[in-house]
Amino acid sequence: MTQATPPTAAACPVDAFGTLAIIGLGLIGSSIARAVRAAGLPTRIVAHDGAPAVRARVAELGLADVVANDLATAVQDADLVILCTPVGTFGALAKGFGPHLKAGAIVSDVGSVKAAALAAIAPHLPDHATLVPAHPVAGTENSGPDAGFAALFRNRWCILTPPAEAPAVAVERLSDFWRALGANVELMDAAHHDLVLAVTSHVPHLIAYTIVGTASDLEEVTKSEVIKFSAGGFRDFTRIAASDPTMWRDVFLTNRDAVLEILQRFNEDLTALQRAIRWGDGEALFNLFARTRDIRRTIIDAGQDTARPDFGREDPSPATAGQA
Amino acid sequence: MTQATPPTAAACPVDAFGTLAIIGLGLIGSSIARAVRAAGLPTRIVAHDGAPAVRARVAELGLADVVANDLATAVQDADLVILCTPVGTFGALAKGFGPHLKAGAIVSDVGSVKAAALAAIAPHLPDHATLVPAHPVAGTENSGPDAGFAALFRNRWCILTPPAEAPAVAVERLSDFWRALGANVELMDAAHHDLVLAVTSHVPHLIAYTIVGTASDLEEVTKSEVIKFSAGGFRDFTRIAASDPTMWRDVFLTNRDAVLEILQRFNEDLTALQRAIRWGDGEALFNLFARTRDIRRTIIDAGQDTARPDFGREDPSPATAGQA
Repeated sequence: MTQATPPTAAACPVDAFGTLAIIGLGLIGSSIARAVRAAGLPTRIVAHDGAPAVRARVAELGLADVVANDLATAVQDADLVILCTPVGTFGALAKGFGPHLKAGAIVSDVGSVKAAALAAIAPHLPDHATLVPAHPVAGTENSGPDAGFAALFRNRWCILTPPAEAPAVAVERLSDFWRALGANVELMDAAHHDLVLAVTSHVPHLIAYTIVGTASDLEEVTKSEVIKFSAGGFRDFTRIAASDPTMWRDVFLTNRDAVLEILQRFNEDLTALQRAIRWGDGEALFNLFARTRDIRRTIIDAGQDTARPDFGREDPSPATAGQA
Repeated sequence: MTQATPPTAAACPVDAFGTLAIIGLGLIGSSIARAVRAAGLPTRIVAHDGAPAVRARVAELGLADVVANDLATAVQDADLVILCTPVGTFGALAKGFGPHLKAGAIVSDVGSVKAAALAAIAPHLPDHATLVPAHPVAGTENSGPDAGFAALFRNRWCILTPPAEAPAVAVERLSDFWRALGANVELMDAAHHDLVLAVTSHVPHLIAYTIVGTASDLEEVTKSEVIKFSAGGFRDFTRIAASDPTMWRDVFLTNRDAVLEILQRFNEDLTALQRAIRWGDGEALFNLFARTRDIRRTIIDAGQDTARPDFGREDPSPATAGQA
């Protein structure tokens, strides 16, 4: 295995933030800390997590210059605060740290739902702080401070959804920050973001969770059979269905309308295929199956997935492990 | 990238088939040819494909000892005939080669639906041939003779569904053949196979095809947005939805009842989640999301998927390609 090259310092000098406070050191928060270091940004990192065990682990891993035990200490010197916790926690956290923000601070987040993030955070910020919500579209199925890595954001897209009143300079500084971490940046309206992500992320996760649950609950097919024969396609879905349950609960609770809209369309399309199967309409099946092939090629050409067959999986099977 | 080790000759000497006829040289058929060679089996390989271009390519690649231009020539000396074409072609092919089978020949296939395979092939075989349907649960999203590789079956399961009248010795010889190619072998009733695969393979494919189609058809979200932000989960589904359209059309037409049964359960489960989202029932969402995590761990422990995050993807992005 060759590890992807970590991001290097951007060619243009970045107007780096002096002090960055990361709230929540899971997969994304700890990856930001690592990517800031790998990019060589001259930024002081202050980390805070609500879980004492995570704070201890962050200290052990040396991910931050300071590990703060409380929110007030974490944000008091910060030029940029990034919330990296589940969306459902944003309101309470912002209420807790809002009064301690220094003048000119930019507050951002990495939540997968942006209208809800804005609504939860904005009411608790003082006038002298600027809110610029963000969403790096990147991740793995793993969670926690050990799961992060510096290259996570490389060539992925980070979507910023600044409210109309956000100063352009703040949006530009945050854009530069994400570019320095290897990401491409796109600006978008929060409501549109939530619809786009409902189709490219939220509904796919819901479907994956559902089919894994359906398979687990069958009386006529044993769990052992589901496991053994999972290479027929099912195993792909189990990766996504292994994602963090709290984060995903909050996504569905806070992006309800867009998710329900996409789900409705998905249901209609699935019902049409179900009917084609029942009535033996091979042409309808073939026509759909033939046109979906093209979209994968486009994703690969856009650098958003690997061209290697089967994702380039190398199964560390007991058999090969024994012979290696 | 390290290529998985190709299968080596089995420790016990295999009662290898003298002549093997492979009908259909796509991903699976060409992988069988390669795996037979890699395993060092002393088997003569005769290849036939209905497409002249495929026959020419098979000859160029040197995948067979003989490339036969017609079915009769392909099977006339064969001790084992394996059909590696879409299930919908089995009846016509068996009718074509049945009269030319030699005494004692074993006929098998690699179709993803087994009751239909039996029903299509059996009526056309002479009494002096034995039918033992089989299904190696392995594959990639790619098709054609160039897509195959010798290690495809390694540590994957091959399911045999012999009819009651099949002699035990024929079943055992075919089992040995698949074991020599690196597979684990399991015997199963055809109807049960079709139900198990409906949940571990067929319905997952149908769902993937559906969501990729749904995403392509949205008026409010551009194709460019779907591509850019596909790393949020959607891209996983596009791999499966890039599979061969003819093969999958035939799977759904021939495994109708089992697919509709599993789809019905999936629909019920998805509707329950949809309702939980609409009514803000976070507990119901969390409870499902928490229990599906376990099944992935079990699949990894069983050697049926990689433990590496994100399938160990290494994205050959334009950015990294330029710097490598």
